[in-house]
Amino acid sequence: MASTNTGGATKKLLIIDTDPGIDDAMAIFAAFNSPEVDVIGLTTLFGNVKTSLATENALRLRELAGREDVPVIEGSSSTFAGVPNKRVADFVHGQDGFGNTHQPRPKGSKEEAMSAAEFIQQKVSQHPGRITILALASLTNVALALSLDETIGSKWAELVYLGGAFFRNGNVNPAAEANTLGDPEAADYVFGLGTNIKVVGMDVTVGCQLTAAEMEALDNGSTSGRFLHSISRFYQDFYRKHHGINGVCLHDPTAFVAVIAPDLFKWAEGCVRVSTDGITRGMTVMDAGLCNWAEANAWSGRPRVQVALGVDETQVVQLIKGRMCK
Amino acid sequence: MASTNTGGATKKLLIIDTDPGIDDAMAIFAAFNSPEVDVIGLTTLFGNVKTSLATENALRLRELAGREDVPVIEGSSSTFAGVPNKRVADFVHGQDGFGNTHQPRPKGSKEEAMSAAEFIQQKVSQHPGRITILALASLTNVALALSLDETIGSKWAELVYLGGAFFRNGNVNPAAEANTLGDPEAADYVFGLGTNIKVVGMDVTVGCQLTAAEMEALDNGSTSGRFLHSISRFYQDFYRKHHGINGVCLHDPTAFVAVIAPDLFKWAEGCVRVSTDGITRGMTVMDAGLCNWAEANAWSGRPRVQVALGVDETQVVQLIKGRMCK
Repeated sequence: MASTNTGGATKKLLIIDTDPGIDDAMAIFAAFNSPEVDVIGLTTLFGNVKTSLATENALRLRELAGREDVPVIEGSSSTFAGVPNKRVADFVHGQDGFGNTHQPRPKGSKEEAMSAAEFIQQKVSQHPGRITILALASLTNVALALSLDETIGSKWAELVYLGGAFFRNGNVNPAAEANTLGDPEAADYVFGLGTNIKVVGMDVTVGCQLTAAEMEALDNGSTSGRFLHSISRFYQDFYRKHHGINGVCLHDPTAFVAVIAPDLFKWAEGCVRVSTDGITRGMTVMDAGLCNWAEANAWSGRPRVQVALGVDETQVVQLIKGRMCK
Repeated sequence: MASTNTGGATKKLLIIDTDPGIDDAMAIFAAFNSPEVDVIGLTTLFGNVKTSLATENALRLRELAGREDVPVIEGSSSTFAGVPNKRVADFVHGQDGFGNTHQPRPKGSKEEAMSAAEFIQQKVSQHPGRITILALASLTNVALALSLDETIGSKWAELVYLGGAFFRNGNVNPAAEANTLGDPEAADYVFGLGTNIKVVGMDVTVGCQLTAAEMEALDNGSTSGRFLHSISRFYQDFYRKHHGINGVCLHDPTAFVAVIAPDLFKWAEGCVRVSTDGITRGMTVMDAGLCNWAEANAWSGRPRVQVALGVDETQVVQLIKGRMCK
């Protein structure tokens, strides 16, 4: 029932876990406009903003896209270890998560009947092998869902996670990328239990950029285009100031492309651990399989994860541009 | 007095801190055969073998090279934090550090008057701006020398450290390389205090290899060549079994080449921290300077270190081959 048959191909049933967020908005609009997927829910989490605001922003995005049929389910306000979240990336996305554009309050309401973790657990159990989860924030909600029922880790079709920085520096500090640093215990737990996991981190997302001129062209008369154009000025300022580039990185939309066009990426397979201690807290470290270890180590025996280490940047950006403003 | 003038060029005064070790032997012979340097002492440390055996092996190497004039000074048997060393890499270098070839005991004796740390501190103080330290083991002795007198960190000409793995996996586990894991506290302390530090890690040393055929050719009739050939079989077996290569990596000799021919390397400059905690203990993490951090972090304000991220492998190997067997 939740799947839709179009032209003979079965759509992927997609749950987007998100903390909107400017590039979250891009990814969500792209998903709504993509015939390959049927978005069956938006679950929310802290990160770019606090969880309650992420919920409001998700409701606003579905309204702008005319997709009030898609439920918004609020996620956790605390990390997997139960620590209330405090840090938000308002210096990247603005205090409202939408570049300080002060959007009107959304008309719709979140689902009250369940948490994001319960929603994920239920949907994956109901449709084994059919649900793809696109995790654009920390892995808190996914970890909580797994802790409700560990079997869902082998029942989802795929978990695509936007996070990590493997063979390059992170974006919060040299060791850590923001989504993973937001809840390292969750990420380490998920990578240790789940199967069919794809990790799309800074090794590939940083190279997928829109130039300032391409950002201007977003305002193409469509509702989503006008909206993305308006919220992105703040985001551009951040990239100019902190990364010295005249444009923006398409982190979240690139992870969405990994759902619909995984062949545009070069995947490496290996066990991934997440540091939870000291100065490397939040760091993702992959065993790249270069040698046979003389002794067992903390990576030994863990499930293998697909990590994106290469990407066709031109094609990914082209695909995103064609999908997010319709 | 300790410097030698040859053809107008002043030789570098070189202290080699070492845990011989098969590739240590290669580096030490190469140094003895190099007109660019005057080896003024071999200081010893645990690592490939325990410290007392490292001392015996260093004495054996100077004897084989006919260089009994070079003092051997024994270093610490405990880490910088005072923990007695337990782990040695006998599965790489053999129980005797020389591929289980059971060498005769050396004729000479170590210096009894001082420790390695005291020797390093005294020599650097006596010849400010003149001493190069080539550290082929953990940074314990160097850290202890610095803790005797922090000013030597700006008085040595250069510290060249063979260790770390920056944008690739380590060799003990995915996070850590052996020398740095041997004493992470020492390395983090040294990188935080010293100036003129060059780090030559696995990012470059792994690519500098001798093939099995080239290993055979080491036995060129010279004492050093015959010795290196005999001790290297065990080392070759390790690389075949654990790394799937028919040859060996020239870790220590590559670091020596960085002393005499630094232009063969591509250096990146940045602050380096060493993790001392959890699963990443021993990991070297460099701030590659890709962005301006929004917030201060554990790397902020640290001295800048030169890290080798690229290398002309062909030229480095050629240089090593020409130097180590004469």
